[in-house]
Amino acid sequence: MRGTVLYGPRDVRFEDREAPRIEKPTDAILRIAVTCVCGSDLWPYRGIQKVAQPTPMGHEYCGFVEEVGSAVRTVKPGQFVIGSFCISDNTCPNCRAGYQSGCQNLEFMSRAQAPYVRVPWADGTLVPTPELPSDDLLPSLLTTSDVLGTGWFAADAANVKPGATVLVVGDGAVGLLGVLSAKQMGAERIIAMSRHEKRQQLAKEFGATDIVTERGDEGIARIKDLTNGIGADSVLECVGTEESMMQAIQSTRPGGSIGYVGVPHGMKLDVWPVFFHLVRLHGGPAPVRRFLPDLIKLVWERKINPGKVFDLVLPLEQVAEGYRAMDERRAIKTLLRPSSA
Amino acid sequence: MRGTVLYGPRDVRFEDREAPRIEKPTDAILRIAVTCVCGSDLWPYRGIQKVAQPTPMGHEYCGFVEEVGSAVRTVKPGQFVIGSFCISDNTCPNCRAGYQSGCQNLEFMSRAQAPYVRVPWADGTLVPTPELPSDDLLPSLLTTSDVLGTGWFAADAANVKPGATVLVVGDGAVGLLGVLSAKQMGAERIIAMSRHEKRQQLAKEFGATDIVTERGDEGIARIKDLTNGIGADSVLECVGTEESMMQAIQSTRPGGSIGYVGVPHGMKLDVWPVFFHLVRLHGGPAPVRRFLPDLIKLVWERKINPGKVFDLVLPLEQVAEGYRAMDERRAIKTLLRPSSA
Repeated sequence: MRGTVLYGPRDVRFEDREAPRIEKPTDAILRIAVTCVCGSDLWPYRGIQKVAQPTPMGHEYCGFVEEVGSAVRTVKPGQFVIGSFCISDNTCPNCRAGYQSGCQNLEFMSRAQAPYVRVPWADGTLVPTPELPSDDLLPSLLTTSDVLGTGWFAADAANVKPGATVLVVGDGAVGLLGVLSAKQMGAERIIAMSRHEKRQQLAKEFGATDIVTERGDEGIARIKDLTNGIGADSVLECVGTEESMMQAIQSTRPGGSIGYVGVPHGMKLDVWPVFFHLVRLHGGPAPVRRFLPDLIKLVWERKINPGKVFDLVLPLEQVAEGYRAMDERRAIKTLLRPSSA
Repeated sequence: MRGTVLYGPRDVRFEDREAPRIEKPTDAILRIAVTCVCGSDLWPYRGIQKVAQPTPMGHEYCGFVEEVGSAVRTVKPGQFVIGSFCISDNTCPNCRAGYQSGCQNLEFMSRAQAPYVRVPWADGTLVPTPELPSDDLLPSLLTTSDVLGTGWFAADAANVKPGATVLVVGDGAVGLLGVLSAKQMGAERIIAMSRHEKRQQLAKEFGATDIVTERGDEGIARIKDLTNGIGADSVLECVGTEESMMQAIQSTRPGGSIGYVGVPHGMKLDVWPVFFHLVRLHGGPAPVRRFLPDLIKLVWERKINPGKVFDLVLPLEQVAEGYRAMDERRAIKTLLRPSSA
């Protein structure tokens, strides 16, 4: 089998790797239907996060169950399943509290840009679709694995309520699906920060009511203008830099909430403004497993179309071009199809 | 009139100051019944927070209304009132949302260690007691002005719920009243971190079920031991240092909440562990005005006795000794009585 391996900055290869096999009775092997490149893959791709050795890549996935270990009970060969990028047993106290991304047996998926992948804790991690899906549903189903689940968590962590005024910082795929999530949760006003015309357009399709192109102090002043001088009720921070976090903090009303889901590489936060702005902060790796059944249902019933974030579709073997296009912001998000699918 | 003035590190003087007078129609003048020294007063006292010029001190207060401005409607001369350390109009959108400490007309009280004080926005800031209080109620009524209101906010911000397991980091007066607050909110288990026998004793009186004397990694391990390896549901961070905040973060279960109320002087927080621990953070200057009516009622009906945190009572003119005793941790908290009261 050939799969995706990152060797170093901007060096992605599609090369021979050992095919996965059942290692523990709780494992399943999937044949990948579609996979994709995540914004977080760009951190090691850009060399900001070092990789010590050649590293298999990919953590967003859905596909067909090929084989299951002897202890697996809830999925079976032939089914179409979607799993979270966080592997979880879904039975420990943290999972039962809805924080599967804090599972006591937590692992992170990392080999899914490949035709086959092993999924540990299959019962706890995978959710089957009602039937085998039609091909046009695959992109949207794939988003539930991470990018939609993460945007949804940003909105959930930001306590988005019906009638709320919501600000979304970040116009990547997560931010755009944060807009969609806020809309689904009943937000009345959704302000998206973006300077990129194609992304502005998609934000509007997903439910944004206002677009703000200014950044920094001007951006904050603009948000205040739009919110009677008070700030937004809920702010989704979908970037993960100090600059974007400060933008979020200063745009939130006292007592309002920030949901942050961008991995905060090396971020040191000055707590003084967080304290005096009286904001609520919650975020982290999204507990996608909590949301998967509902998100799959929304996609299955065609109530949402999050798959629109994929504006580039490539055969899996062209994965390197998929990374390049996202790195250069030519593509919002790249969908990859193994040739067998 | 003589009042308290801080000249510089460890230089507190009780000296002649101009008596306050009505400056705006929304002002009231109070004759102070009792006032006290706050843990936050020790920051400038110790020189960690610089004072540019001689600075009048004191922001916890209760007393008798002497005079009101022409626009004041809800309090009148002769009444006994308690006000928050945050001056608020209590009508702006932030106040109406319960965040009076984010009021659009916010001011901080700062001259209350004196026999008389001017309170701006009297209608929005002051709450009268049902009748004139008996003398033995004064210490507990005084706590509602800040130290109890702040401990209460820590518990509220940490989402303390009936049956919860709560950790309190910090054994100062705020932490001790955080214990009392968590108990009132129905916490089942309350773990207090303290190495100081007198404070441990008071924590137990206020409702602590467990005392942890270890700190740092050992402290975290001890908390995990006490919580089946998961961490506490709610953590009250009542210190305001990086060390105490990291203690709080690592002692909270995924999805659990930290309420932090210690002023974070120069605190730079590494967001990485906050992210991966999936904690909720909320804090800031406590919106005491939101809680005042309920807290006054609890004290008035003698259901709580938060005044026990005062283990040193001095005439106001000995205020310098009051600061010294707290600085040296000889006293938990110093109550000050003007000679006229």
